[in-house]
Amino acid sequence: MGWDALFASRAQRMRASEIRELLKLLEQPDIISFAGGIPDPALFPDEAFRLAYQAVLAEAGAGVALQYSVSEGFPPLRQWLVGQMAGIGIPCGIDNVMITSGSQQALDYLGKLLLSPNDTALVTWPTYLGAVQAFNAYEPRYDRLTPGLGNVTPAAYADGARQAGGRVKLAYLTPDFANPTGETMDRAARERMLDLADELDIAVIEDSAYQALRYDGEAVPSILALDIARHGDIEKTRTIYCGSFSKTLAPGLRVGWICAAKPVIAKLVLMKQAADLHSPSINQMAMHHVAENAFAAQVVKIRAAYRHRRDRMLAELERHMPEGVTWSRPEGGMFIWLTLPEGMDGAALLARSIETARVAFVPGRAFHADGSGGNTIRLSFSLAGDEAISAGIGRLGRLIAAR
Amino acid sequence: MGWDALFASRAQRMRASEIRELLKLLEQPDIISFAGGIPDPALFPDEAFRLAYQAVLAEAGAGVALQYSVSEGFPPLRQWLVGQMAGIGIPCGIDNVMITSGSQQALDYLGKLLLSPNDTALVTWPTYLGAVQAFNAYEPRYDRLTPGLGNVTPAAYADGARQAGGRVKLAYLTPDFANPTGETMDRAARERMLDLADELDIAVIEDSAYQALRYDGEAVPSILALDIARHGDIEKTRTIYCGSFSKTLAPGLRVGWICAAKPVIAKLVLMKQAADLHSPSINQMAMHHVAENAFAAQVVKIRAAYRHRRDRMLAELERHMPEGVTWSRPEGGMFIWLTLPEGMDGAALLARSIETARVAFVPGRAFHADGSGGNTIRLSFSLAGDEAISAGIGRLGRLIAAR
Repeated sequence: MGWDALFASRAQRMRASEIRELLKLLEQPDIISFAGGIPDPALFPDEAFRLAYQAVLAEAGAGVALQYSVSEGFPPLRQWLVGQMAGIGIPCGIDNVMITSGSQQALDYLGKLLLSPNDTALVTWPTYLGAVQAFNAYEPRYDRLTPGLGNVTPAAYADGARQAGGRVKLAYLTPDFANPTGETMDRAARERMLDLADELDIAVIEDSAYQALRYDGEAVPSILALDIARHGDIEKTRTIYCGSFSKTLAPGLRVGWICAAKPVIAKLVLMKQAADLHSPSINQMAMHHVAENAFAAQVVKIRAAYRHRRDRMLAELERHMPEGVTWSRPEGGMFIWLTLPEGMDGAALLARSIETARVAFVPGRAFHADGSGGNTIRLSFSLAGDEAISAGIGRLGRLIAAR
Repeated sequence: MGWDALFASRAQRMRASEIRELLKLLEQPDIISFAGGIPDPALFPDEAFRLAYQAVLAEAGAGVALQYSVSEGFPPLRQWLVGQMAGIGIPCGIDNVMITSGSQQALDYLGKLLLSPNDTALVTWPTYLGAVQAFNAYEPRYDRLTPGLGNVTPAAYADGARQAGGRVKLAYLTPDFANPTGETMDRAARERMLDLADELDIAVIEDSAYQALRYDGEAVPSILALDIARHGDIEKTRTIYCGSFSKTLAPGLRVGWICAAKPVIAKLVLMKQAADLHSPSINQMAMHHVAENAFAAQVVKIRAAYRHRRDRMLAELERHMPEGVTWSRPEGGMFIWLTLPEGMDGAALLARSIETARVAFVPGRAFHADGSGGNTIRLSFSLAGDEAISAGIGRLGRLIAAR
């Protein structure tokens, strides 16, 4: 069977990502890993989930939990999310919220909704690799959102897109504690993002996966909140907010959500109906149960745990990194972004580190759509204990110093 | 915000399906409904699911059940499915099986894998509406697989596809107890399907959602089993088998699977990684627990229950339908397909029925890509009790007779 000839062009382009292949290689037990950017399972609210599944499968409700349900999602969960959104300055109604199977599915659906082949998506470099992989299926080109969002004119973006045979359709970004840099956009940068989007008349996809994980500093209003503040009403906004329970409660249920103007949600619900009917009923009901009963306490608990790890890692970096190495000081999230001395390559360092220091991390080039970022690496502090952080950063510092 | 101008062309085409909109209107409690084609929740193995979620969330395993997992699916569940597939004449290995979020997701991914705009998908008319909706996102055209699969030459299919600007990529069909007709393809028709696919060099998507629900008659080998018998090895086949637990154990967990040659599975796993990372870990583990402990007994139980309802509905049709009405006699599944006297319209009959007889069903035109099938209707017997079947078919027969 010559399958390649049967695959659509979008499928021909799909490749295993270098970074995920890499992570598979790093599972040896004696390695200290700062590679995987996943929550610590020791912090999951196990007992709350046990009670939740018991409750939703109790005699009376099991038939609902195990049955087909509506594509927009379990209404009480959506209603709970309306309350959460209001709490962060985003007044909206239940028809502005739909449930997705994690925010990864939200990114896939938004690519499907917005991108025709050769359209342009604006992304920061570095950016969350999974977003680019989701969008790739819809064959866009990418242009670079610069950190200050100021050094390319709207006309230049639009011209580039037109020359490529499409138009700019969206900007994608993670304003809080971004993966991989850990950095947060200040309010002025968010406003400039909206200015640019207004000029280009494009959608802004706000990936808020880490938003609840703030350890210090003041919360910056979400881009959707600022967009509503400008226009008075979510129906007049262009920002599509993607939220997730994966980093706060647990990723294994695959429950995320999208909050946006109704015409967007209505199209996405039709899309979801055709693509997987609905996210699992039982998980939406269980997640609602845990959210109602344990969300606030859980967020307090994980903030304290991750803040401690971040502080420990920052202190050890201070102690062990040689001259010429710099790093981000994130106010939340799971990642520290480290810039190596000019000319030192992150991937080569990883190879040496695995061989001698036995410390794993992710080379930064993997997060750059243009192959730049060679002298950067991503360190995750979400999974490592005190001793691992001290030992690992110490060994890594000595390895970098010894070059 | 002028959202329409931002939506990709595939999204512009998405429409709420007439049939699903209709079902929403039919939820009044005094209506006897033969409309919804969903399993009876009273038959779900509730207790087995309660035990399963308890087991997977027990102290030791909760961290795994609630955590991220691999895109191909929970290995023990895939291994269990390898055993099931072997049992129906499909010898394969674990790398031939991946988990999807229901077989609806399998259909979406297969459209994404195979269809470029203007490619041709061959489907029967009538066909499962959800398949056409899933494929529509990838902008194919459709050509008709005729029931006997014999009256259009391969060259004619290929020419039509070429003239439309693409090529024939796949044939989609439900060989056992199809939705909506309830009909089963005999072995000769399945072999002819493979002949046609060989000549056209296309993929065959075998939707086996109802396969386990056989109430009498002899099982016909699956198309993938016949394809393996021809070529000696699943790696040499062109058939992609889509299975589901939705009709046997429960749909609310959204667990289905694809079984096919490794190059297909490998591409689909990359696609899934980019689209939703993985199906929920906890549900795959729970489904594995229930499959191991309760699958065989559950299938015996639901076969008996649905067989009884089918028999009852067939007997009542015999008793109450006037001259000129004919219907399918399905050996399994959930549906009976009824052909009204020439010139009588199913949609008009439904409108009258809701008004007077208070019996609901789905007009057959909804299942035809070309708008034909006006004088057909689909009756589902999966949800109705004895009295409802007798009363509903009686009223419907009198309404048809009274025209």
